[in-house]
Amino acid sequence: MIEVYGFATPNSVKVPVALEEMGLAYELKPVNVRQGEQKAAEFLALNPNGKVPVLVDREDTADAPLVLSESAAILVHLAEKTGKLLPHDGVARARVFEQLFFHASALSPAFGNAGFFKRFAAEPQPLAETRFTAEANRVLDRLDALLGERRFVAGDDFTIADIAHFGWLWRRDFSGMTLDGRPHLARWFDAVAARPAVRRAIARVETLVPRDA
Amino acid sequence: MIEVYGFATPNSVKVPVALEEMGLAYELKPVNVRQGEQKAAEFLALNPNGKVPVLVDREDTADAPLVLSESAAILVHLAEKTGKLLPHDGVARARVFEQLFFHASALSPAFGNAGFFKRFAAEPQPLAETRFTAEANRVLDRLDALLGERRFVAGDDFTIADIAHFGWLWRRDFSGMTLDGRPHLARWFDAVAARPAVRRAIARVETLVPRDA
Repeated sequence: MIEVYGFATPNSVKVPVALEEMGLAYELKPVNVRQGEQKAAEFLALNPNGKVPVLVDREDTADAPLVLSESAAILVHLAEKTGKLLPHDGVARARVFEQLFFHASALSPAFGNAGFFKRFAAEPQPLAETRFTAEANRVLDRLDALLGERRFVAGDDFTIADIAHFGWLWRRDFSGMTLDGRPHLARWFDAVAARPAVRRAIARVETLVPRDA
Repeated sequence: MIEVYGFATPNSVKVPVALEEMGLAYELKPVNVRQGEQKAAEFLALNPNGKVPVLVDREDTADAPLVLSESAAILVHLAEKTGKLLPHDGVARARVFEQLFFHASALSPAFGNAGFFKRFAAEPQPLAETRFTAEANRVLDRLDALLGERRFVAGDDFTIADIAHFGWLWRRDFSGMTLDGRPHLARWFDAVAARPAVRRAIARVETLVPRDA
C-alpha cells in the first residue's frame, strides 16, 4: 500500500494527481499545516525537514518501506515505478527534468515568497514583495511563451512536469497571481484541471481540510 | 563535443565538476553575469530564462544538439548518459532525487535571497534578510544532521546530489553562511573540495573571470 501524508497545499496535491493519473491506489494521511502539524514530533520522525508531502511506499522494498520527501522526487519515483508520464530517454526526458527543476528553483519559491510578503510579514517589506511578485510574473510569462510552442510544458505529451507546475497554479490566488493576458498558460491550465484524474485528486485532498477551518 | 555556457557561479560550477568526475571532455564558454551577459539577446536565444549554466550536447542526437538549462537537469542528463554518479534504482536512487530537489527548492533560493538582501537591496528589508538567513541556517543544520548519518548527502557514495549542494557551499560567503559548529558538513565539504576532479573544475571556471574584475 502507498500512503501520502499531506494537506490541500500546492506541493501536496501533486502526489495524489500523479497517483490518480497512474492508476495506483493510495491512502491519504492528513497533516494539518494550518495547525502546524508538519512541525510535530510525530511528523518530523517521517520527514525531519518538516514539510509535506511525504510518500510511504511499502510495495517495492523487501524490508523497510521507502519514506520519501520532496514532491518532485516523489513524482520521479512514481513515474519510474510505473513507466508512466516520464519519457525513457532522449530530449523528451531531459525537457521533463528541465521543467521539474525550473518549477522547484524558480516558480515555487517565487510563488511562496510573493504570498508570504503579501499576507504574513509582520511589517511591510515593499521591496521584498515587489521582488517576488515580479519574479513570479516573469516565470508565468516564460511558461506562457513556452506553452505557445508546446502543448504541455515539456513537449507534446502530459508528463510529471505538468503535474509539478499545476500545484502552484491551482493555488495561485495565495500569491496574487493570475492567468490574465496569458492565453497559452490559461489554455494549458484549463486542460490539466479538466482531466478526470486531476479532478479526483483535488476532490480527495479537499476532504482533508476540516469543515470549520 | 560538449559545450558549457557559464561563469564562476554556484550553479555553473556544478556542470564542470560533473564532467570532470565523469571523464567527459568539454569546452567552457564564458557568460559574464557580472556584466549581465546572461540577459543579452545572443544568450537568450540559448536559454530564454536568462540563467547560466547551459549545456550544449552534440554527441547523442542525430540532428539538432541538445540545449539544456537548469543545472540539476544537466546533472541528471550527464549521469544517465554515462551511467555514473546516480544509482540505477531503488532507495539509493530516490535519495539522490530527494536531495537534488531539496537543494533546488530550499538551499539554493535561501542562499540566493539571503545574499541578495544582505548585499543588493536598494533599502534595508530587515525582516526579509532575517527570514532568508534563518532559512539558510536551518537548511545547513539539516544537512549537518544528515551528514552525521551518511558519508555523502544521499548515502554512502558520492553522487550528483553532492555536486548540487557543493555549488552553493563553495560560494557560501556570498550568503554570509559558515560551516562553524557543523562538523559533519565541514567534514563533507573538505572531502568534496579535495577531490581532484572538483579541483580541476574550479580551476577551469575561475579562468572565466577577467583578471581586472
